[in-house]
Amino acid sequence: MTLRQATALRYQDGQLQILDQRALPGRQQWLTVQSTEHLVELIKSLAIRGAPLIGIAAVLYLAVLARQGLALEALRQTSQVLRQSRPTAVNLMNLLDRINPVLDQGAEQVEAAALALFDEDLALCDAIAEAGLPLIKPGMRILTHCNTGGLPTAGRGTALGIITRAQEAGLGPFVWVDETRPLLQGARLTAYELKAAGVAHRLQVDSAAASLFADGQVDLVLVGADRIAANGDTANKVGTLMLAVLAKHYGVPFYIAAPWTTVDPACPGAGAIPIEDRDGSEVCQLGEQQLAPADTQTYNPGFDVTPADLISGWVTDRGLITDPGAFIA
Amino acid sequence: MTLRQATALRYQDGQLQILDQRALPGRQQWLTVQSTEHLVELIKSLAIRGAPLIGIAAVLYLAVLARQGLALEALRQTSQVLRQSRPTAVNLMNLLDRINPVLDQGAEQVEAAALALFDEDLALCDAIAEAGLPLIKPGMRILTHCNTGGLPTAGRGTALGIITRAQEAGLGPFVWVDETRPLLQGARLTAYELKAAGVAHRLQVDSAAASLFADGQVDLVLVGADRIAANGDTANKVGTLMLAVLAKHYGVPFYIAAPWTTVDPACPGAGAIPIEDRDGSEVCQLGEQQLAPADTQTYNPGFDVTPADLISGWVTDRGLITDPGAFIA
Repeated sequence: MTLRQATALRYQDGQLQILDQRALPGRQQWLTVQSTEHLVELIKSLAIRGAPLIGIAAVLYLAVLARQGLALEALRQTSQVLRQSRPTAVNLMNLLDRINPVLDQGAEQVEAAALALFDEDLALCDAIAEAGLPLIKPGMRILTHCNTGGLPTAGRGTALGIITRAQEAGLGPFVWVDETRPLLQGARLTAYELKAAGVAHRLQVDSAAASLFADGQVDLVLVGADRIAANGDTANKVGTLMLAVLAKHYGVPFYIAAPWTTVDPACPGAGAIPIEDRDGSEVCQLGEQQLAPADTQTYNPGFDVTPADLISGWVTDRGLITDPGAFIA
Repeated sequence: MTLRQATALRYQDGQLQILDQRALPGRQQWLTVQSTEHLVELIKSLAIRGAPLIGIAAVLYLAVLARQGLALEALRQTSQVLRQSRPTAVNLMNLLDRINPVLDQGAEQVEAAALALFDEDLALCDAIAEAGLPLIKPGMRILTHCNTGGLPTAGRGTALGIITRAQEAGLGPFVWVDETRPLLQGARLTAYELKAAGVAHRLQVDSAAASLFADGQVDLVLVGADRIAANGDTANKVGTLMLAVLAKHYGVPFYIAAPWTTVDPACPGAGAIPIEDRDGSEVCQLGEQQLAPADTQTYNPGFDVTPADLISGWVTDRGLITDPGAFIA
């Protein structure tokens, strides 16, 4: 049985399909990957997004080609082409490095290796979900930011994975979804995922979170992470720091959920984490619409850094961490 | 000399023009008011917005008609029609109540009364600007939210009026502009006004304010108000409370700027201020674009309430208030 089904990827018997994330939430459109060029185009155009999912898609497509009888040299060339489709995705390169040694061992071995890498990513998500489950009390109202669910991974994701696990456990979580400007991953993707999972939720503009805290409507904040420094300072999507300060002010627990691979022991703390300054068009335009005067200067950091002392704990695949000393142990 | 020029309204010698705020920031389109029906349509369609400006436009248009020789009875009927064009705008009704008694005194008197009401609103804004000027130090970096400038008033506005006054005084203020989701008054209108006034500024998504505070990039927060309770608790555009909590956490002064007419001594405090729960389409759609799954439930309060203990002071036309006891004196 070779079937593997993720939220935005499906593999079975030498056929790879992906959910076109450009069309979300408007349309749920599955596309069958037709060629290497097609897969590269899907990655470059963000039809497939999320570093883990890109890596999984790449190794599974090598299995597709191996089953079609593609020669070893051509498989190796394809692996090289795919590696260059998203230069910043470390996961993509790591997974290709791990499948390359078996490309000469026949279609069955290539497919088995690709499926194992899919299963590994899924297991990582499950381990985070299990580690976070004890944080969730029945009927808890959880506030989250950005998209941390199944769409960018082979499994159930990180912060959102804990929430869907709590839903399965019958704990009936309720989620306040920050829309997550400027790219609206909360509105477009997290609301979509929670709806699909049957988890009760409401969407708000990011700055409305404050009055939810003031009204006592938030029991827990649960978000993902892009990098965790050695001292526990944590970089995540811009807007996370606002939530951490609000949580502190109103006495609400604030947790990060991320795989241990997010920890960077070589990075001492907040000041050493470079923050991407993104293009102002993300703030000034939405689709065809101009939201501000055309030449308006912007401040558009992709991420912000939450200091460790505002963080109650980190949920990882190695368990729940409450002392950041663990990150350099 | 009958010329009166506001940011979004111009009157001279029996001709009334308004800046179409629907077209901002894309186009700066001035429209000459052609008839009572035309003015009503401009008000209903939000081409003219801001309760003070609507009232000013209405009384000035009565002066236009008086100068055209419209009979007394027709002037009175027009006043009644205009009164109903925006039922919630208290300023509109107040200004019509004040001009109605002179409608029988001839065109010159009607025009003089209308111009006096324009001048009064302008003076109110100037008084706030003068009262706030001492707060602004040279080169100060001021964070603001929503639109509080010349567009909705006959004068320079409230919070933004203080900032443009500081610019005129050579203090070189710099403004961080919150885009102000969901209706983007910061991006669409405040960025437009600051550009026109030559004030240096940058635009950011609302949740990015937190990292500006963390980086020590904000010296002062200055925002408007919709209602000030007897104890000083202050309702303003949603997102204001987030800024007040951040300002407290990072030790940055947080000031409100508003006319004394905003004070409601009959309202004891936060709990007694009703908060409008607005339509979810403001969050889920932008123009023709669907931002979230179509049936997504939202939390979309139009305003939030900042408790008095997070407010450093209130800048009013009666001066700078730092003890909310003044509101019931």
